[in-house]
Amino acid sequence: MAGADQYPFEPIMNPYWSDIVQRLTPYVPGEQPRETGIIKLNTNENPYPPAPEVLAAISAATNADLRLYPDPAATSLREAIAVADGVAPAQVFVGNGSDEVLAHVFQALLKHDAPLLYPDITYSFYPVYCDLYGIDRVEIPLTADYRIDLADYDRRNGGIIFPNPNAPTGTALPRAQIESLLQLNTQSVVVVDEAYVAFGAETLAPLVTRYPNLLVVRTLSKSLSLAGLRVGYALGDAGLLEALERVKGSFNSYPLDRLALAGATAAMRCREYYDAANRQVMASREKLVAALGALGFEVLPSAANFVFARHPGHAGAALQQALRARNVLVRHFAKPRIADFLRITIGTEDQCAALVAALNDVLG
Amino acid sequence: MAGADQYPFEPIMNPYWSDIVQRLTPYVPGEQPRETGIIKLNTNENPYPPAPEVLAAISAATNADLRLYPDPAATSLREAIAVADGVAPAQVFVGNGSDEVLAHVFQALLKHDAPLLYPDITYSFYPVYCDLYGIDRVEIPLTADYRIDLADYDRRNGGIIFPNPNAPTGTALPRAQIESLLQLNTQSVVVVDEAYVAFGAETLAPLVTRYPNLLVVRTLSKSLSLAGLRVGYALGDAGLLEALERVKGSFNSYPLDRLALAGATAAMRCREYYDAANRQVMASREKLVAALGALGFEVLPSAANFVFARHPGHAGAALQQALRARNVLVRHFAKPRIADFLRITIGTEDQCAALVAALNDVLG
Repeated sequence: MAGADQYPFEPIMNPYWSDIVQRLTPYVPGEQPRETGIIKLNTNENPYPPAPEVLAAISAATNADLRLYPDPAATSLREAIAVADGVAPAQVFVGNGSDEVLAHVFQALLKHDAPLLYPDITYSFYPVYCDLYGIDRVEIPLTADYRIDLADYDRRNGGIIFPNPNAPTGTALPRAQIESLLQLNTQSVVVVDEAYVAFGAETLAPLVTRYPNLLVVRTLSKSLSLAGLRVGYALGDAGLLEALERVKGSFNSYPLDRLALAGATAAMRCREYYDAANRQVMASREKLVAALGALGFEVLPSAANFVFARHPGHAGAALQQALRARNVLVRHFAKPRIADFLRITIGTEDQCAALVAALNDVLG
Repeated sequence: MAGADQYPFEPIMNPYWSDIVQRLTPYVPGEQPRETGIIKLNTNENPYPPAPEVLAAISAATNADLRLYPDPAATSLREAIAVADGVAPAQVFVGNGSDEVLAHVFQALLKHDAPLLYPDITYSFYPVYCDLYGIDRVEIPLTADYRIDLADYDRRNGGIIFPNPNAPTGTALPRAQIESLLQLNTQSVVVVDEAYVAFGAETLAPLVTRYPNLLVVRTLSKSLSLAGLRVGYALGDAGLLEALERVKGSFNSYPLDRLALAGATAAMRCREYYDAANRQVMASREKLVAALGALGFEVLPSAANFVFARHPGHAGAALQQALRARNVLVRHFAKPRIADFLRITIGTEDQCAALVAALNDVLG
């Protein structure tokens, strides 16, 4: 925008950038279409709305007090999470979505001389955090059938992180297997990212009191239908959380606004409502798995609110495009080993039926 | 919490921490009291509520769509800011409060071989960011009368940052002086933190199109009465903003939730309402300055929504305590050169009168 006649030097941008910026390749989130009429099965949102109590709590907080800073300690929310998950408030750390929580976790707990270990096929934000903070890592291949085998993690490391269930595969590990890892791997932190745990996997929340090397990360975006509110949290020993608090307090004193605090606190108290919604999601998943199987898809076993599926006769990218042309959004990752797969969020019954109809049309 | 009988090793915390954590001393925000009946003049919040249109916009967004992720590009908000500040949307970067924006600025633009320069007395988060990102810095002393003299910044540097008006002093520099610095200091970025600019200083927003080395940081917390909503932004050349976007996209794709986006977008369109509120704040400031002078205080010239004042016969810490005992909160910094000062936020007329009454009582 600046012309040479207005300014004494050419607008070459890069000299102003810190070195780190030149090397960053940001995470690419799924498309958030602005147009309506799209069947949106691409970012693992819950198809059901937040509990009515959540909207009521936000409405009650929409007042003149927005002129005041929020509680930097998020006391009420941490207490509500503690009650819901059976831990102490001092074992709860909250942040602006689990992505912000994870960012702090990488910086505060996972940067060591030995490399961080995580699966080669997993949440694609992990390598981005490593680049941001200069963390050495080794990606551990999933098995041939796309499972995490924890025996592969028995090696020198500065930390281990994986989602349970894993994403984008959807496959889950039993709690007992992860507990064995916690007993073996005492020299570094094991971070279990439970973004999707409420859809059929076993939470490790009850173990944080016994294992000071365990950090559990959760989000309200999926199972509590609040992707739009940006609230996530971590559960762990107070020693681990102190590290997170130090980084958070050196980054942003108030990451959660008054409305997010109010809505999230209410959501943590609506277990019955969300349990019913998530049971419906799981029921729809089983129907969809059957329908996809009937269409010739191979579907990985899913304990999440999405399925990961491929068709022997159709490339993943082409299928995604064909569905997009029919107003159905699903996610595709142009990455080795999984380029043939689609990650499909479980929608309402109607949305799942529309997806199957669109696939029938494409494959037919 | 873990007993030795439950776990194979002693709960020594620090081995799990990344090295950086050991060295961090987080920023300490002003007290956010949970009790009522306090006259809160300690964190520079606006005494007047957000515009009615802001609350209406938040209410309209409090619906089932909270299950969906927000717009990661914050398109509507960036457009509204661009209109309000007379720049292009491509010159606007938004974040979760100006603290998050500043954190990204430090990491993306201010880490270089040469040291960052900032005033010795200024926003106390700046050295915290430097510690978080390992940024070398030199603190440039304010003049004896607590002003920034930009001639002192004519030295080798990897960046310059200061608030205008400065905090906690409240003193402002004229735009022309800063423009001269921009013309001299072309080899690094000059960041002007305009958190308080709307209370009587000159904004540099019109200059971002002409100076690719200028970044202006602003917040909705003070002049738009939205400290509780956590929205801040930066204005600058697209080359600078690309660096911020890369860091932001490597940290958290969606830092602003749907309600913050809705409320902030509405706020940017309510100039008349906020101009009136802020004129009232400035009028109250002038009355308070006169009243403090009559009580024997020395008050630095303020272009902000606070004043910085000291009394020759009373230590700052003791005065703060005495006011606290009378339910009036003000901010005190136990730091060299300013330990005798109080930073007092401008409240409503009634709040200012209550402060003066409490001071009369204390000073006897």
